[in-house]
Amino acid sequence: MGKKLAVVLASGGMDSCVTVAIAAEQHELALLHVSYGQRTARRELRAFNEIANYYGVARRFIASLDYLRRIGGSSLTDDRIEVSRANLDSAEIPTSYVPFRNTHFIAIAVSWAEVIGARYIYIGAVAEDSSGYPDCRPVYYEAYNRLIEVGTKPETEIEIVTPIIHLHKSEIVRKGVELRAPLHLSWSCYCDEDIACGMCDSCYLRRRAFLQAGFEDDLIQYKVPVEEFRKAIKL
Amino acid sequence: MGKKLAVVLASGGMDSCVTVAIAAEQHELALLHVSYGQRTARRELRAFNEIANYYGVARRFIASLDYLRRIGGSSLTDDRIEVSRANLDSAEIPTSYVPFRNTHFIAIAVSWAEVIGARYIYIGAVAEDSSGYPDCRPVYYEAYNRLIEVGTKPETEIEIVTPIIHLHKSEIVRKGVELRAPLHLSWSCYCDEDIACGMCDSCYLRRRAFLQAGFEDDLIQYKVPVEEFRKAIKL
Repeated sequence: MGKKLAVVLASGGMDSCVTVAIAAEQHELALLHVSYGQRTARRELRAFNEIANYYGVARRFIASLDYLRRIGGSSLTDDRIEVSRANLDSAEIPTSYVPFRNTHFIAIAVSWAEVIGARYIYIGAVAEDSSGYPDCRPVYYEAYNRLIEVGTKPETEIEIVTPIIHLHKSEIVRKGVELRAPLHLSWSCYCDEDIACGMCDSCYLRRRAFLQAGFEDDLIQYKVPVEEFRKAIKL
Repeated sequence: MGKKLAVVLASGGMDSCVTVAIAAEQHELALLHVSYGQRTARRELRAFNEIANYYGVARRFIASLDYLRRIGGSSLTDDRIEVSRANLDSAEIPTSYVPFRNTHFIAIAVSWAEVIGARYIYIGAVAEDSSGYPDCRPVYYEAYNRLIEVGTKPETEIEIVTPIIHLHKSEIVRKGVELRAPLHLSWSCYCDEDIACGMCDSCYLRRRAFLQAGFEDDLIQYKVPVEEFRKAIKL
């Protein structure tokens, strides 16, 4: 029996890079990238294509939305709002939150999956240790799977799989290294496209994870050097 | 106390026109139109704007997606697939089905609603007497309301309202006439933009509804004249 087809949402970041590696263990892959007017869209698309090349995936779909940027409300898509610096102790949702973002991405994945006959949708959402987005929690994916069940053709079976949702970021790094995921090709920074800023929410989580996992993230350059970063996060 | 703000999804068709009329009874309106590469996109946008003008709604958002057309799988967005002629006795989902379509539209509505502070999202979905789309059934909207509850900020309260979901098409016409909805400005045909074809799924449902309700739909011209239509549907 042939492998089943899985659509993997791949932003080009570290989490989705490891998610691609996990899905590749069991499935034939179709990779979906969504560009939505975020600051670092071009750099992320490059990372996506390099990761897809690494895995030899020909089936790619790149969707481009302009309406999330036009709707606004997030520092990721609105230049007038500052990207918040990492503060994981805060209970507040960070300014990088894009209202209901993952719902759009997964909806595209479902429409595509229904047409190409994919059985699974993989997404690298991370609940714990994450930046506090509501659409990264298991309860959200349970609700989405129910929506797919009732919102597609009766014969369609599509299920969202979140293989790293319960992992800490450092465990994700370890998993990636174990599976030889091309982490050096991934891009995490929310602010910059040439040299990563090193201090936005996303850089912070990535760097801390590599340090905690005991691996060097030396394939990515950062504007804030590692010693300064260690001091800032008291690690 | 001021009226609460409601986002109404308005395609420009008859059902959404009546839905706008119902929402206008209780709420301040914000109108959302989504163009997704369907055959009659330009004509529908014109209908949308004329209906918005009729109600004096300044707050409009027009989103344009190209990825549903690129994903394909529907006669509405793929010229190589023929639009099925009305056959309501068939249990099959018609070729005009766009995979998971309403999920995309409502996701845009939710993102917009969260940013502008709208409390409700109105959509003119019709379950019975409809063309058999899975994303027009009450169970789908229950699942979506749950997704919104868990997928938005904790303080956000947004609820989807489907005021005509249990109405037959003829009751929708009566409701529209009662509320003086500008049905003459709405556009239903899936095939043509100048003179409605008169026999596609959507024309069929509209014409039959007017005949059954005892009103003349004489503000829309059809290629297939009413006598021939009556004969074809044995009414």
